[in-house]
Amino acid sequence: MTEVRFDWETGIEEVCLKLQEKKRIGVQVPEGLKPRAHQIVERIIELTGAKVILWGETTYGACDLADRPLEEIGADALIHMGHLPMPYHSEFYAVPTYFVPVKHTGNLVLEKKGVKIIKKILPRKIGIVTTAQHLHLIEEASSKLERAGFDTSVTTGGPRLAAAGQLLGCNSSAARKLNVDGYLYIGTGLFHPLTVALSTGKRVACIDPHSGEVTEADAKPFLKQRYAAISVAKNAKRWGVLFSSQIGQKRIDLADKVADLLTADGKEVMMIGSIHQSYEQLLGMGIEAAVITACPRLAIEDGPTWPIPLLTVPEVQILLGKREPEPYPFDEFA
Amino acid sequence: MTEVRFDWETGIEEVCLKLQEKKRIGVQVPEGLKPRAHQIVERIIELTGAKVILWGETTYGACDLADRPLEEIGADALIHMGHLPMPYHSEFYAVPTYFVPVKHTGNLVLEKKGVKIIKKILPRKIGIVTTAQHLHLIEEASSKLERAGFDTSVTTGGPRLAAAGQLLGCNSSAARKLNVDGYLYIGTGLFHPLTVALSTGKRVACIDPHSGEVTEADAKPFLKQRYAAISVAKNAKRWGVLFSSQIGQKRIDLADKVADLLTADGKEVMMIGSIHQSYEQLLGMGIEAAVITACPRLAIEDGPTWPIPLLTVPEVQILLGKREPEPYPFDEFA
Repeated sequence: MTEVRFDWETGIEEVCLKLQEKKRIGVQVPEGLKPRAHQIVERIIELTGAKVILWGETTYGACDLADRPLEEIGADALIHMGHLPMPYHSEFYAVPTYFVPVKHTGNLVLEKKGVKIIKKILPRKIGIVTTAQHLHLIEEASSKLERAGFDTSVTTGGPRLAAAGQLLGCNSSAARKLNVDGYLYIGTGLFHPLTVALSTGKRVACIDPHSGEVTEADAKPFLKQRYAAISVAKNAKRWGVLFSSQIGQKRIDLADKVADLLTADGKEVMMIGSIHQSYEQLLGMGIEAAVITACPRLAIEDGPTWPIPLLTVPEVQILLGKREPEPYPFDEFA
Repeated sequence: MTEVRFDWETGIEEVCLKLQEKKRIGVQVPEGLKPRAHQIVERIIELTGAKVILWGETTYGACDLADRPLEEIGADALIHMGHLPMPYHSEFYAVPTYFVPVKHTGNLVLEKKGVKIIKKILPRKIGIVTTAQHLHLIEEASSKLERAGFDTSVTTGGPRLAAAGQLLGCNSSAARKLNVDGYLYIGTGLFHPLTVALSTGKRVACIDPHSGEVTEADAKPFLKQRYAAISVAKNAKRWGVLFSSQIGQKRIDLADKVADLLTADGKEVMMIGSIHQSYEQLLGMGIEAAVITACPRLAIEDGPTWPIPLLTVPEVQILLGKREPEPYPFDEFA
């Protein structure tokens, strides 16, 4: 197990060179970096002489920027840490926005034993995918696996993606675009490799880069949970159609369409907007099922903890008979 | 006890007459009205033919509008229910904003027994104050008390206030502007009458308009809690200075000043902005005390449930020796 550390200093130094004229800079950090927030803020003050504000609300990605409320309070720049930009947003920022990558440092642990397990799971021709904090490990993984006889490929997905091999919870196009027979996912957590397994129908081996542990992404328990949620939601009379006002999660036209479909099916529908969605927001309103048109992670990861079924858009289409139930359709942002 | 109901229908009908050309209307309702949210939304659709969105995030008052995120998602009007407008904001709304009062219906229960207790608590010359949902009871209370020998007065406070006798948690000027010797507060809850008692130094009788129960606002337990919080905060090294981006709660210049005072006193200070403030936002950052420049209700009502002291701005001034500890200073928004 190599030690997991964060490298944010280099990125902050580079960005602050561009921020010498700024008066008030807002900073967003992912939850995992909050223990470093004080150091980060102090360093930005030191390097720019500006007033620096930490944005306190949670951020879940480059889709979830604080540029608009920061403009409200007179900030003239936003530093967003830990996520890569969604390139097609850049013309819409309310204040100039700078993305600082945060690498998880520590070497890639990929030894003979790991390669052997990967060989058992995957065929020869594979794609490599990962999330923002591990992108710098792709090259090393690729050379090691090529030397072990694999044919590896990496590509950049659609306009939401900034780097080759990068996955988002709402976009696995960096996997789908490759003509390969299986995938290696570098990272932790099950959500991202599942999106790859289910959207491609191919096997996915996962390597935890710090422990070297290799496992296979197993979709079965996940699929069981999702089809059960769809089934429970069939009995719901009053539905919430949830959507976000955040720049990269806003799909109001889709929300309208889903609301129309549910209404046509005889359901009562409430359109409910918010910045971040939560079950607490629905309390007391008699809502028996909900569909999320914002971040699909919410349905997949938080949904099972809600007392009512929370479905993705394609899951509602299945429920209404507008879509085949299999293969299971992930909700992908184009 | 008279039955407590809400009268929102009349207000909605009046407002919807002005919204015949609107395409997408956002609605904010206070938490207590959420059980009626579905009915309210349906009624607005019926009366306007527009698409109607309920704004899901909590709203705490006219200081806490969703006009900006609603503009983001293409709404062309906001109906904000249950609070009176803060008149001086009106030129800053991002979308046209309409306030619908929500009355608590049911008669004022003020009988001989109640009047007798009020006479024990208050001198002859009194002011009458209340919150938005009970404003329509002031006239009746006034006539009854005049007949019982009181000399009653009512006035409108500063530019944050829309109606005579109206209190806000952050503004008791409708009490302070009167030259009287005591106050009758119509309503429930201790927060509002306490602001009157402490900001005027005079006795306050409280009548629950539906049960007719009369009590006196007792500041002692409250003051004990606040001075204890100030005392605990003295040992804190790292401070969060919290502020809001919401239209009626935004005091960024004040936040700067408080941060400067704390820094000059040798504290480590982080400026933390958000829409609504919570302790969860501070987790993991080593913050040992915080000061709220947004809604002072947060320090007074929620603060005691936080694991760290949460002070108002005048409380920090006391802590730093910049202000006398007594009489206790409420944080008033001018």
